[in-house]
Amino acid sequence: MFFSASEFSSRLDKTKKSMIKDHIDILIITDPSNMNYLTGYDGWSFYVPQGVIVSLDKEEPIWFGRKQDSNGARITTYLKEENVLGYPENLIQSPPSHPYDYVANYIHENKWANKCIGVEMDSYYYTAENHDRLLKQCPNVKFKNAHLLVNWIRFIKSDSEITYMKDGAKLVQAGMQTAYNEIKPGVKQSYVAGKIQNTLLGGNDEIQIGGEYSGLNIILASGVSASASHLTPTDKIFKENEGTIIELGGVKHRYHCALSRTVYIGKPDSKTNETLKITNEGVERAIESTKPGNTCHDVAVAFWKVLEKYGLEKESRCGYSIGLGYPPDWGEHTLSIRKNDMTVLQPNVTFHLMAGMWMDTWGLEISESIRVTENGCELFCNFPRKLHLI
Amino acid sequence: MFFSASEFSSRLDKTKKSMIKDHIDILIITDPSNMNYLTGYDGWSFYVPQGVIVSLDKEEPIWFGRKQDSNGARITTYLKEENVLGYPENLIQSPPSHPYDYVANYIHENKWANKCIGVEMDSYYYTAENHDRLLKQCPNVKFKNAHLLVNWIRFIKSDSEITYMKDGAKLVQAGMQTAYNEIKPGVKQSYVAGKIQNTLLGGNDEIQIGGEYSGLNIILASGVSASASHLTPTDKIFKENEGTIIELGGVKHRYHCALSRTVYIGKPDSKTNETLKITNEGVERAIESTKPGNTCHDVAVAFWKVLEKYGLEKESRCGYSIGLGYPPDWGEHTLSIRKNDMTVLQPNVTFHLMAGMWMDTWGLEISESIRVTENGCELFCNFPRKLHLI
Repeated sequence: MFFSASEFSSRLDKTKKSMIKDHIDILIITDPSNMNYLTGYDGWSFYVPQGVIVSLDKEEPIWFGRKQDSNGARITTYLKEENVLGYPENLIQSPPSHPYDYVANYIHENKWANKCIGVEMDSYYYTAENHDRLLKQCPNVKFKNAHLLVNWIRFIKSDSEITYMKDGAKLVQAGMQTAYNEIKPGVKQSYVAGKIQNTLLGGNDEIQIGGEYSGLNIILASGVSASASHLTPTDKIFKENEGTIIELGGVKHRYHCALSRTVYIGKPDSKTNETLKITNEGVERAIESTKPGNTCHDVAVAFWKVLEKYGLEKESRCGYSIGLGYPPDWGEHTLSIRKNDMTVLQPNVTFHLMAGMWMDTWGLEISESIRVTENGCELFCNFPRKLHLI
Repeated sequence: MFFSASEFSSRLDKTKKSMIKDHIDILIITDPSNMNYLTGYDGWSFYVPQGVIVSLDKEEPIWFGRKQDSNGARITTYLKEENVLGYPENLIQSPPSHPYDYVANYIHENKWANKCIGVEMDSYYYTAENHDRLLKQCPNVKFKNAHLLVNWIRFIKSDSEITYMKDGAKLVQAGMQTAYNEIKPGVKQSYVAGKIQNTLLGGNDEIQIGGEYSGLNIILASGVSASASHLTPTDKIFKENEGTIIELGGVKHRYHCALSRTVYIGKPDSKTNETLKITNEGVERAIESTKPGNTCHDVAVAFWKVLEKYGLEKESRCGYSIGLGYPPDWGEHTLSIRKNDMTVLQPNVTFHLMAGMWMDTWGLEISESIRVTENGCELFCNFPRKLHLI
């Protein structure tokens, strides 16, 4: 286990307290990040239904998943054997039967059929079908939306979590340096992506850390494709006089540190130079205003004040909570750095300040992963924010 | 675009015909693979709500997604500008508002509020919340479950699709060879994973192909962890006298070729040797029985007959359709190679024959990606199935 028993116990206590506050007797968790947070479970098995059940009348959470994945739960969680439930293989992708028939049955077996059950309505992998099966087979259950209940408990990081994110920072800096070293005219994006992954996972001679797959794949796009926020490397060739946006994540024990930069092959045009300069000024003001007691709104105002001064527009938010994640995301879906998000910053809140400027036919990105400290904040990375020229 | 206009047009025609057959007027697609199949859309934006709408009264599909991703749709799809809809940023992760409020509103605007709308109830990223918003805001719509409607159209691959899967095969073979070359006692799994990714994405000198991220991450686990089916590489060290299971995907234009093998450091014990021999015999019999006219059941019977002969048990299915995919999966969720799946094989049906033997405290894996041909089948890869010794 990568966290102490007392840390897992504290996470569970907080979850149960939140459940009591929300009058929830039983909580069914399907977000793989929340499953990991409460039990340590770590496996690429979220492509089939699985979950963690927290019941106020049971000490430990219960893991359920496909039987062939249950050894994964035995290996990666602290759960007792009785709390690892493998459902039968014949429920896998064989309509009309479905793994949530098993879950519904389990609810009845435990005499929970009249209880209030929390479900993560908008979480990854909690499909409409999952919910529909429960609604139909447990008509007397009162279902309550517990989306983000556990995410908000994850909001403030422990020192161990910060340590892993700092490992992620070393990996992501090394990965970005690899991108800088490998991008050249005539080279394929996919070739560079391979080199980047090699560093993000394997580290390098300097940092002897092993990384993991990221909740968000490498984002890397050049020229007109950099006008879109989430295109991924293909077999396209890097060309002269094109900018490339690069967004990477370094991952340790599923904790992420994200970093974005922009490179340009050749002599950048003045709009790229100018926009990057303004964006960096905004990023600096946002960092300066990141401190306990300030709100996300305050940070957003500081950022947009700079953009507005220069007449630059950006509609999308410029940040979000980051930490524990599984595909498809490394964001934690709690705070957003945008105007009118009145979430108050506190020490060990972590977020990805993401200044993506996606224009009509081009784009640039600068981002930093940030930890709020007692008096201000610190950046996880120490990597120049200037436009990198090749 | 990686497919001809006529190929996209044929996909759309088949979809509309299926809709008519199922009395569906409008189809909302959220599975990223199905979105890609019908429009070409390709971006790592599935962590926020997005979709493709097919309406019988409109010629082209309609892409909807976050506004900052709409340039991605302009770049990667063939859709006309009027059919790319970017919803406003303030709907992103800011409850109580939600992107499906936008979708519901669009339904009303188009006077579809009394129509029959198909939704992919059990598809990735179609959350309970998405569906609940539509139910509440469009009370007169008749919703119909259209899960797998498009998946079944994808069942038989075109020659172009096969070509991309063959590119994937070259990448995945090279990736497996990299694993064989790099696994050594004392080396970190994550180090080897980095080298494998480098090959899967960047190719090597021999195969000048650029690969892409896989729908399923590298599965790689040693010793007791090989008893679980979906554990991923960590910073653990390879040790003497341990087996390691490796499952990889080579990807071209989002088309996957999967391959699994087992390696052993040192002298394998007799149960590993024996089980692998039996498994390989089962795989051979399954391959022999793969031909048009035979069912998945027939292939499964051929496989399990061997296992039963030797008294070996395996509960999980031993294969599934493969091709176009996005995280969290490369499986296409149509056929399964299991007893009583009476799906009839046809030329250019492709599947991943996956003989994963996950035992109590150890495991092994042998798999092949297979194309059904006119008279039998062919393997995408040509890679020895024996236990690889290090």
